[in-house]
Amino acid sequence: MKILLIGASGTLGRAVAAELGARHDIIRAGRASGDVRLDLADRASIEAAFAHLGKVDAIACAAGEVAFAPLLDLGEGQWQFSLAHKLMGQVNLALTGSRHLQDGGSITLTTGILSTRPIVAGAAASLVNGGLESFVRAASIELPRRQRINAVSPGVLLESMPLYAPYFRGFEPVPAARAALAFSRSIEGAETGQVYRIG
Amino acid sequence: MKILLIGASGTLGRAVAAELGARHDIIRAGRASGDVRLDLADRASIEAAFAHLGKVDAIACAAGEVAFAPLLDLGEGQWQFSLAHKLMGQVNLALTGSRHLQDGGSITLTTGILSTRPIVAGAAASLVNGGLESFVRAASIELPRRQRINAVSPGVLLESMPLYAPYFRGFEPVPAARAALAFSRSIEGAETGQVYRIG
Repeated sequence: MKILLIGASGTLGRAVAAELGARHDIIRAGRASGDVRLDLADRASIEAAFAHLGKVDAIACAAGEVAFAPLLDLGEGQWQFSLAHKLMGQVNLALTGSRHLQDGGSITLTTGILSTRPIVAGAAASLVNGGLESFVRAASIELPRRQRINAVSPGVLLESMPLYAPYFRGFEPVPAARAALAFSRSIEGAETGQVYRIG
Repeated sequence: MKILLIGASGTLGRAVAAELGARHDIIRAGRASGDVRLDLADRASIEAAFAHLGKVDAIACAAGEVAFAPLLDLGEGQWQFSLAHKLMGQVNLALTGSRHLQDGGSITLTTGILSTRPIVAGAAASLVNGGLESFVRAASIELPRRQRINAVSPGVLLESMPLYAPYFRGFEPVPAARAALAFSRSIEGAETGQVYRIG
């Protein structure tokens, strides 16, 4: 399969590439590195990446930033940043990607445990993750040409604990390689409209 | 209790006012009618309404529009409309409202069944409703001064079936009075971080 992987240079993206790279052709996309330049927050760059690539068999997104701040300190700019990047960035990737995806191809987005298990300072991440999970369920019943869409919702990554441990006390960290397995289930399996909760 | 009710003139809002009006002082707010003018999509109008009102004991929102269109026809403007109105309108109402809410006061937002049960042409509504439900869970652990926040997630309203029946075939309609009971549970009960699914 020809798989477009967005966020290929990140912790999760590298694990996804390691899991799928032996069996498939991975096209690495990122804002600042990779085979293709793609900025999720910039619709034109999404269009440009696909125009350059032609049809793909799978689109996997392991990117998408959100702002973290105490609830009442979250400013308009931080909300808009979170909506534009992780939320609408992935929605636009899915909707634009559908036109450049083979029949029966799959789209796999990344959400995260905060959709259902909140932490202090994580309200924007919770909102974005929850919105994406509901979007995936809804989009799955409308995508054309037997295309599929799923979300991977990992807990805090083990590899990120040096940075995030103080925010995720008591949460069981998930090795990126375990979360990457869910990308394999989504891409190499046959389900659609699923949220794979890992950890 | 002094309860600010946004969307008081709508189908759900009228039922909420009927349920709570006999026991409490309802301040009706709406874009074009009511005791106070308030447009959810306009942060300044939210601020202005609270500046006018002083402290309230409860904030209940039965308003918030989203765009409906087939998945691949949903344009950028329709997504932004949905995010600005039902999603961030209610988030901004909660965050601004917290400052004008009594200790122990409650905030009750409206989501809807599409967060978990999708329909064709409802992807923006699903995303918005799912985002709000996760936001409510997250905000509940950070609101100050024992303030509470819950969401009411009704099915399609019985009173709306003349308009919406073709989109909701097979869904069991919910009388607005039943959904209004969930507002009573949220406002007159003691729970927080809950999503009351009605229907």
